[in-house]
Amino acid sequence: MKTILIIGAGKSSSSLISYLLNKSSQENLHVIVADLSLKDAQDKINNHPNGSAISLDIHNVENRRKAVKSADIIISMLPASLHLEVAKDCLTYGKHMVTASYISPSMQALNDEVTAKGLVFMNEIGLDPGIDHMSAMQVIDRIREQGGKMLLFESFTGGLIAPESDNNSWNYKFTWNPRNVVVAGQGGAAKFIQEGQYKYIPYHKLFRRTEILNVEGFGKFEGLANRDSLNYRSIYGLDDILTLYRGTIRKVGFSRAWNVFVQLGMTDDSYVMENSENMSYRDFTNAFLAYHPTDSVEIKLRSYLKIEQDDTMWEKLLELDLFNPNKKVGLKNATPAQILEKILKDKWTLQPNDKDMIVMLHKFGYELNGKKEQIESSMGVIGDDQTYTAMAKTVGLPVAIATLKILKGEINIPGVQLPITKEVYTPILKELEEYGIHFKEKKVPYLGYNPERI
Amino acid sequence: MKTILIIGAGKSSSSLISYLLNKSSQENLHVIVADLSLKDAQDKINNHPNGSAISLDIHNVENRRKAVKSADIIISMLPASLHLEVAKDCLTYGKHMVTASYISPSMQALNDEVTAKGLVFMNEIGLDPGIDHMSAMQVIDRIREQGGKMLLFESFTGGLIAPESDNNSWNYKFTWNPRNVVVAGQGGAAKFIQEGQYKYIPYHKLFRRTEILNVEGFGKFEGLANRDSLNYRSIYGLDDILTLYRGTIRKVGFSRAWNVFVQLGMTDDSYVMENSENMSYRDFTNAFLAYHPTDSVEIKLRSYLKIEQDDTMWEKLLELDLFNPNKKVGLKNATPAQILEKILKDKWTLQPNDKDMIVMLHKFGYELNGKKEQIESSMGVIGDDQTYTAMAKTVGLPVAIATLKILKGEINIPGVQLPITKEVYTPILKELEEYGIHFKEKKVPYLGYNPERI
Repeated sequence: MKTILIIGAGKSSSSLISYLLNKSSQENLHVIVADLSLKDAQDKINNHPNGSAISLDIHNVENRRKAVKSADIIISMLPASLHLEVAKDCLTYGKHMVTASYISPSMQALNDEVTAKGLVFMNEIGLDPGIDHMSAMQVIDRIREQGGKMLLFESFTGGLIAPESDNNSWNYKFTWNPRNVVVAGQGGAAKFIQEGQYKYIPYHKLFRRTEILNVEGFGKFEGLANRDSLNYRSIYGLDDILTLYRGTIRKVGFSRAWNVFVQLGMTDDSYVMENSENMSYRDFTNAFLAYHPTDSVEIKLRSYLKIEQDDTMWEKLLELDLFNPNKKVGLKNATPAQILEKILKDKWTLQPNDKDMIVMLHKFGYELNGKKEQIESSMGVIGDDQTYTAMAKTVGLPVAIATLKILKGEINIPGVQLPITKEVYTPILKELEEYGIHFKEKKVPYLGYNPERI
Repeated sequence: MKTILIIGAGKSSSSLISYLLNKSSQENLHVIVADLSLKDAQDKINNHPNGSAISLDIHNVENRRKAVKSADIIISMLPASLHLEVAKDCLTYGKHMVTASYISPSMQALNDEVTAKGLVFMNEIGLDPGIDHMSAMQVIDRIREQGGKMLLFESFTGGLIAPESDNNSWNYKFTWNPRNVVVAGQGGAAKFIQEGQYKYIPYHKLFRRTEILNVEGFGKFEGLANRDSLNYRSIYGLDDILTLYRGTIRKVGFSRAWNVFVQLGMTDDSYVMENSENMSYRDFTNAFLAYHPTDSVEIKLRSYLKIEQDDTMWEKLLELDLFNPNKKVGLKNATPAQILEKILKDKWTLQPNDKDMIVMLHKFGYELNGKKEQIESSMGVIGDDQTYTAMAKTVGLPVAIATLKILKGEINIPGVQLPITKEVYTPILKELEEYGIHFKEKKVPYLGYNPERI
């Protein structure tokens, strides 16, 4: 019998734990779920005979080490900043490890030791990062094997609301950490390459530089640039690619309206507003507009940001109660971003029967036998309910599948890894299809940004 | 004979040193100028019999202490971050000290010790901070003595090019640190109060929220908000004022054109651009615009920022060679802000005969005997040449005057001070008039932002 320790019983662990428990009899597994809250861990195990729940404070070194020691492989679903201590314990006791987080420099620094001990530390094997790596590398490797040369790679992922639960004018609800949505894109210019030229978009222009995307079977979306488009250039072997762009997916029209918040300064998280607790939503909006004794907040905003009287974007603002003088913020010493988050949560919080949706789209442009070609590959997943969400499935299932394959020795290249090799991604992508996570591919005309080169 | 040690013989020390040398025989002074560069110090002394020049590395503790010990009062014209070590030495050896810099928290922390030793550490006694404090407090104190209640205080200062040297379309040249001009306004939202309401302007809107100013005898200008409008609220005793705003002065039209740089992201100092050294000015501009195979950089910029074909702002951009494909940036690993600074320096550097100008404007709104009144007080100074610039005069003369008055015991309230008391500002402002630095006052109709309250 092999023992799997899962640290962290949060929302994103449900599909992961359920996968492993379902396989536990057949694969002879014991699944331990550890969480600060014993109840959360117990809920996830749900009295399964092959599972057990323990309470674990990750900062209690002795207990953490005891738990790590007791297992054959450790899955850390903790916040990314907490992986390192677990990783060091895994190294000490010779245990494999799996995370869905980006490889931090300190995690990377363990590579030599991990390799020397013959351990596998598999990271970035959730959704994004994770499924994006695997599905992209599968197509890129195939193009290269055919003798093609990559010209363009664009990749977009979005966590959205499922069409059946999509009932507000923003076509958006919080299916993940609201704070991350509010401050998304801040902290530096977005950088990418278009036709061999480096391009930079400052934060305050990010939401006006979107592109329209069509995702087979899921309709029209818009993509906006991530900050980090070039991070994987070398890792994917795309050092000489002409166009490289990574982005986030929203429904069409979201970014144009969100830009109102950016322009006003409502997404700023760097300072605390005076008297935020007693401010009304209308006061909050007015704080970003010049004083006028008689002009309304509405007309000042329209005039400042040049919003025409028949612009449907206005409905989006009204829907959020941004001009409501009676609703109070009720947060002490809050930043604009914290207040905006509060306002959005009033309207964008999932209702009990709401389902979420994950959409991913890759574009691969390449030259093969003197001809320019383009493949679009897309994936959409809708959540079952609010436990087995699309997010929980797409993050948790690849983690679970990889864990089992490492335990069984099918994934066995030691070191601090991410899933970009064929040996890793092929079986995982194949198994994900059984769970409804599959990519549709189509050939489209090559659509680089320079049609003269076609 | 009293000895004055001036540390720092930079541009802003010329009027200061010359004032003290001119008074030296009459007042029985010995003036020591210390600088890392002995030559710079000697140039400033210019063989004056009552002066001497020494070479001093401020980080050489022994030499620094020796120099401090030798004097009766120390003027630090060092960068603000270097005052503290000098201040500690002054405390050790019981010497008075004068700076033109903001009181840092660590300087403020010395207050008890300074007071206990009966020393005067006078700070913020240059132009801004300095003349602004003194000239504002003089009017505010007068209004209060008459029984008036302050309703509004706005204060603007600008370092500009003199009208006779103003020969570019921006009506601007670098008369001070170019880098500070390029990054001005960054690092947080501007915060101020209008009619009792807190208002916030994010950086990317700062240059579109200007107000037009008329300065008697100097013409029309525009004012844009500083970040720190509320810093002196309590110090000036204006805790319940309805409108409080501090700003920077530019010639009309500057901010609207500068906004192009902000919108493009050219003022960003937080990241390094790829291949900055070999970039042309045109490449630099193009890096902030989407790729297009045939559209010119010019048409892309016009379209992106909606600049109409007959907008005179366009001339300002052309004048800077922003679209020149032949001029190279030539800076390795440069940030956008560093590249922009380089481009601007090509055109905005002072020519040998150019003169600078300082303009300051205060608006005081108040209620007296049930009537709302407003006073505008303004000051303009033009430099004599590139040694005795308007900046050197307005920064250096108040420092020099204060120093002499401290030496003579006329300014004698001990502690870490700034010049906001009548005993300090009255004689200094009076003497500054002899040097052409004087304020014109006029009564205007009360122009608060709420005319209904008039």
